Amino acid sequence: MRWISLTTDFGTQDWFAGVLKGVIARLAPKARVIDLTHQIAPGDVRAGALALAAGAPYFPKGTIHVAIVDPGVGSQRRAIAVETDNYIYVGPDNGVISWALAVERVHSIHELSDESYWLQPLSRTFHGRDLFAPVAAHLARGVPVRKLGPSRREYVQLDWPLPKKLTNGIQGEVVYVDRFGNAVTNLVANLVEPDPGKKWEAVGSAPRWSCPVGAYYQAVSPGKAVALPGSTGLLEIAINGGSAEKVLGLKVGSMVVLRKKKK
Amino acid sequence: MRWISLTTDFGTQDWFAGVLKGVIARLAPKARVIDLTHQIAPGDVRAGALALAAGAPYFPKGTIHVAIVDPGVGSQRRAIAVETDNYIYVGPDNGVISWALAVERVHSIHELSDESYWLQPLSRTFHGRDLFAPVAAHLARGVPVRKLGPSRREYVQLDWPLPKKLTNGIQGEVVYVDRFGNAVTNLVANLVEPDPGKKWEAVGSAPRWSCPVGAYYQAVSPGKAVALPGSTGLLEIAINGGSAEKVLGLKVGSMVVLRKKKK
Amino acid sequence: MRWISLTTDFGTQDWFAGVLKGVIARLAPKARVIDLTHQIAPGDVRAGALALAAGAPYFPKGTIHVAIVDPGVGSQRRAIAVETDNYIYVGPDNGVISWALAVERVHSIHELSDESYWLQPLSRTFHGRDLFAPVAAHLARGVPVRKLGPSRREYVQLDWPLPKKLTNGIQGEVVYVDRFGNAVTNLVANLVEPDPGKKWEAVGSAPRWSCPVGAYYQAVSPGKAVALPGSTGLLEIAINGGSAEKVLGLKVGSMVVLRKKKK
Repeated sequence: MRWISLTTDFGTQDWFAGVLKGVIARLAPKARVIDLTHQIAPGDVRAGALALAAGAPYFPKGTIHVAIVDPGVGSQRRAIAVETDNYIYVGPDNGVISWALAVERVHSIHELSDESYWLQPLSRTFHGRDLFAPVAAHLARGVPVRKLGPSRREYVQLDWPLPKKLTNGIQGEVVYVDRFGNAVTNLVANLVEPDPGKKWEAVGSAPRWSCPVGAYYQAVSPGKAVALPGSTGLLEIAINGGSAEKVLGLKVGSMVVLRKKKK
Repeated sequence: MRWISLTTDFGTQDWFAGVLKGVIARLAPKARVIDLTHQIAPGDVRAGALALAAGAPYFPKGTIHVAIVDPGVGSQRRAIAVETDNYIYVGPDNGVISWALAVERVHSIHELSDESYWLQPLSRTFHGRDLFAPVAAHLARGVPVRKLGPSRREYVQLDWPLPKKLTNGIQGEVVYVDRFGNAVTNLVANLVEPDPGKKWEAVGSAPRWSCPVGAYYQAVSPGKAVALPGSTGLLEIAINGGSAEKVLGLKVGSMVVLRKKKK
Repeated sequence: MRWISLTTDFGTQDWFAGVLKGVIARLAPKARVIDLTHQIAPGDVRAGALALAAGAPYFPKGTIHVAIVDPGVGSQRRAIAVETDNYIYVGPDNGVISWALAVERVHSIHELSDESYWLQPLSRTFHGRDLFAPVAAHLARGVPVRKLGPSRREYVQLDWPLPKKLTNGIQGEVVYVDRFGNAVTNLVANLVEPDPGKKWEAVGSAPRWSCPVGAYYQAVSPGKAVALPGSTGLLEIAINGGSAEKVLGLKVGSMVVLRKKKK
């Protein structure tokens, strides 16, 4: 039995996500499909990359992770499959799989160019249905990655924003905002472990805000902000019972500084 | 084969709901997972409790019903599993499973405290992934509930708002508004059976409205309000072809009176 | 193994879509269910018909396609099952399955009237749970269509808006707007093949707009409009990296003219 995970910006209001699963059912009826999410904002390759990186490691070994956030569909962008120690990643070569690969040992990279593994005719706007889903199904049936097209040495890597060291702390930024309005930063959470609240506080601007570091949402009063180690291993800014996106105005790119507390 | 149902407020825009299924696939590959819903409003324990109570009885006997609406995650709130004649319920002990249990014969209540059934390390904000999903997977593989932690005598029960008897009718309130804008009340539908429209009418205020009791949406003209026996066994206020939430301004807590018609 | 696809307007915020799957799991545990979509706008029979027609052909032969967009639930509208060369379609007889049937060879049409294949008691507002899901499950277990009720000669057909020939082009209209804001028209895409951009341009009004015909989104600059062959075989109006719904104000019914370019 092989598992296939799907991460796309197709949404769930149209038939697009369902059709991917219809195609897979037709070609690989024994494969089991799990939706990681179909609600990546349209064309937001970085959000797709983060979702995949956060979710992929929790899947069974051998899972075929398909990520389709593909604003360049129909143009000359490549489609690739990357095999690692644990998984096979499939998607357009625009960086959407690159953050998940950052923690993997890559065995091989292949361009998806052998049309015999696609649906025919290939549409110009829905390679999810006509190329990625069929390729994933063939992989699930045991077709080796090398059959799908020629080997490549590289894949497109999205740059990850690196925190900056300051005299009195570290400057990071928001890289993702989740449905609760929690703002995930690029600051590694174990910076503030094991005694989160003792040494550090988090501050931001525009508008200006500051908050203590805590261990969980209810470490502060309802409606108050807290910086806490998130489930991705990254520091998150949250409001107990509320939305940091709404209350603090945080969005992707907003600056967050982790500052040493004055004694 | 064991079934697992999932009811959460994780939404579907992030990777959270997908990751639950990845974890279950890894630990219990033969288990079959059904999403009851992941769209409970963030932290709305009562809405989660109602969705679970409305949906759970339609699942196969032996289903493991997991409900995670958990604003207290990471704090000292308990996590529990409750075994009944028909199902096993798993969730935080904050009342989210209590309305489903109201119609069940409870066999045993166990606190989820044995860490050997969790993912390690346990995050502070995502017990769905690290505790509830793995516990559900172990249950699906046949681990008995009593292995998960010590027995408890009680679970937290949400109070259910009781209708009040009036001189000329019954006063209830809205307990849930669904995606169609239908307002589910706490009034038992068989009050108005078997001849719904003959004896009763429904009225509300702020703004003032009244409507006949009918058997289905199209019992009234398009755009008109009707009170009808809903699929949960509770009386619902609906607009034929529209939204009672929008047209009548109904929301959770809005008063609804079932009044005897003048002859 | 039998597949069941689900197309409904139940949304995913309530327990409705999940309960369909619970009911199917109970009656036909080996059936495999795929959500085509549950996000059809409430009561929008035409959108449901289009989604089903666009998605159904990609499913395995023998799939039971269930479509429930059913504003007349509880009234005297019929429920039907239609068997074709490839699939069995199940739904209310209000046209929601008719566009998918337009490309199929119909073997038989049966009214769903034998109550022994339903849940009892039948609710008045949720035939998805009490009638359509159980019927689909029984079909998946091998019950022949003819057992479900008497044969019928006809089913309700939605009319499809036909394009009009103009002196210098063809006048069509928007029939669907997807989550990306792409506007699918009733103009057959192969009108403009094989050299899309050479001969034609697309124009609209209210407000007035015009755009070239291209082969994919990035055939025009970011933010610019393009008319291109969509994945359904119909011409779509799109904005590269944006929403034609928002930028051009397109919605279902908006006029779109394909006009011969001046040389």
